[in-house]
Amino acid sequence: MTFLDKLDKASKRNNSLLCIGLDIDLSRIPQFLLNMDDPIFSFNKAIIDETRDLVCAYKPNIAFYEAYGNYGLDSLKRTIEYLSDVPVILDAKRGDIGHTAAAYAKAIFDVYKADATTVNPYMGRDSVDPFIEYADKGVFVLCLTSNPGFKDFQLIGDEEPLYMSVARNVKNWNRNDNCGLVVGATMPSELRDLRSFVGDMPILVPGIGAQGGDVQSTVRNAVNKKGNRAVINSSRSIIYASNREDFARSAKLAARRLKDEINSYRWLG
Amino acid sequence: MTFLDKLDKASKRNNSLLCIGLDIDLSRIPQFLLNMDDPIFSFNKAIIDETRDLVCAYKPNIAFYEAYGNYGLDSLKRTIEYLSDVPVILDAKRGDIGHTAAAYAKAIFDVYKADATTVNPYMGRDSVDPFIEYADKGVFVLCLTSNPGFKDFQLIGDEEPLYMSVARNVKNWNRNDNCGLVVGATMPSELRDLRSFVGDMPILVPGIGAQGGDVQSTVRNAVNKKGNRAVINSSRSIIYASNREDFARSAKLAARRLKDEINSYRWLG
Repeated sequence: MTFLDKLDKASKRNNSLLCIGLDIDLSRIPQFLLNMDDPIFSFNKAIIDETRDLVCAYKPNIAFYEAYGNYGLDSLKRTIEYLSDVPVILDAKRGDIGHTAAAYAKAIFDVYKADATTVNPYMGRDSVDPFIEYADKGVFVLCLTSNPGFKDFQLIGDEEPLYMSVARNVKNWNRNDNCGLVVGATMPSELRDLRSFVGDMPILVPGIGAQGGDVQSTVRNAVNKKGNRAVINSSRSIIYASNREDFARSAKLAARRLKDEINSYRWLG
Repeated sequence: MTFLDKLDKASKRNNSLLCIGLDIDLSRIPQFLLNMDDPIFSFNKAIIDETRDLVCAYKPNIAFYEAYGNYGLDSLKRTIEYLSDVPVILDAKRGDIGHTAAAYAKAIFDVYKADATTVNPYMGRDSVDPFIEYADKGVFVLCLTSNPGFKDFQLIGDEEPLYMSVARNVKNWNRNDNCGLVVGATMPSELRDLRSFVGDMPILVPGIGAQGGDVQSTVRNAVNKKGNRAVINSSRSIIYASNREDFARSAKLAARRLKDEINSYRWLG
């Protein structure tokens, strides 16, 4: 089953466009978990058990696991294995020359067994191709991001801004129908234009909540004509909704609230 | 001691601008090493023992270690520890929003204990700043790369191409005097312009040898006015010079030849 099939299936089964970002931070998890054998996995497992029927995907960002060395990366592997039928987008933003990109793709898809990943387009086609060659896997290319620094380079251009040129290229590279874009929630009208340009391609949308993106405009502009193919990510405001014993239940409530809010705007057009 | 001091010191001590890329590939190392306890480290150690007095730095690319999972990353850590007094540029090309970039910087500088790294500028200043904050560490920002895909995006621009805008920004971000650029060896005149623009900032130059960059024009255009601050990388043509028992000695000969060739052009201006 391809990533896109898996995503559509989970999205339909759970009636959800919500993606939960599993961005681990041991200083923010309930401190009693630190006494457990594998605190990172224990935390993720508790969150997943309460939310797996509320999401279309999970998105662990590998940076937060790398920061804990091999211990963190082992917990990441365990987490991805545990997710099995729910799609996992391993957010890694890799990008390097061809044969190096192939090594990164091997790490992400063969070692960590993610269903999809994010990549950085700065080095061009041969830095993205080795990921696209995994036809069953999803490849979300950074396009227009939601952080303050987006304006340093992504708007540069002559006839069109860099981010639009990225979108145009990704559309051309998409021979395996496994590409997507990363477009932040903070620029609704650009998001709308990009959706209209890429048709049914999945768009991963970070930046609602903590980064200030508005849910209504984000959802209306991000979905395709059938109200699908937007993967709306929220990380910290869900997984750290509480740091007490009830943390997983609090995450469930926050996830359900956001999922329902997203759905309330999904078919408004 | 800062990265720049360490680089200058090694460069002076060994009279060298040569950087050796430790890009491990178990299918290319002498196969008798596979019977050893830690083949990756054994290979790297043999190469390092024969070449450490010929280089200004080593540059392992983390992709090739990640592809072997935690086993590879353990060997990487051992390799970096073993290098101690020779500067290590851990080529990782990371780039993500601020607090995620901080986690990557922690992994690279605190977990793997590299002296310097490479970063991707696509997401702008806040994605690079957490690396720059490690004032003793070096941060090489991707500018103009040597792979075929460089032309997809790096030349885009109105008044100046994207790569020039990156160089301009990096110069502004360089408050800790610890930034550098990555500029491929394949475009000599752009390399010359960039050197003249950034003054004494270190420039990491991949792309000679396997990727086709000419040594003479690369060296003449990459060095500063004193013939320094260029870090000329070669990976496969040195470390895989032979795959027989004499592999380390062959690497030494290849390294010495390239080091001497580089020096023959270094002060020609």
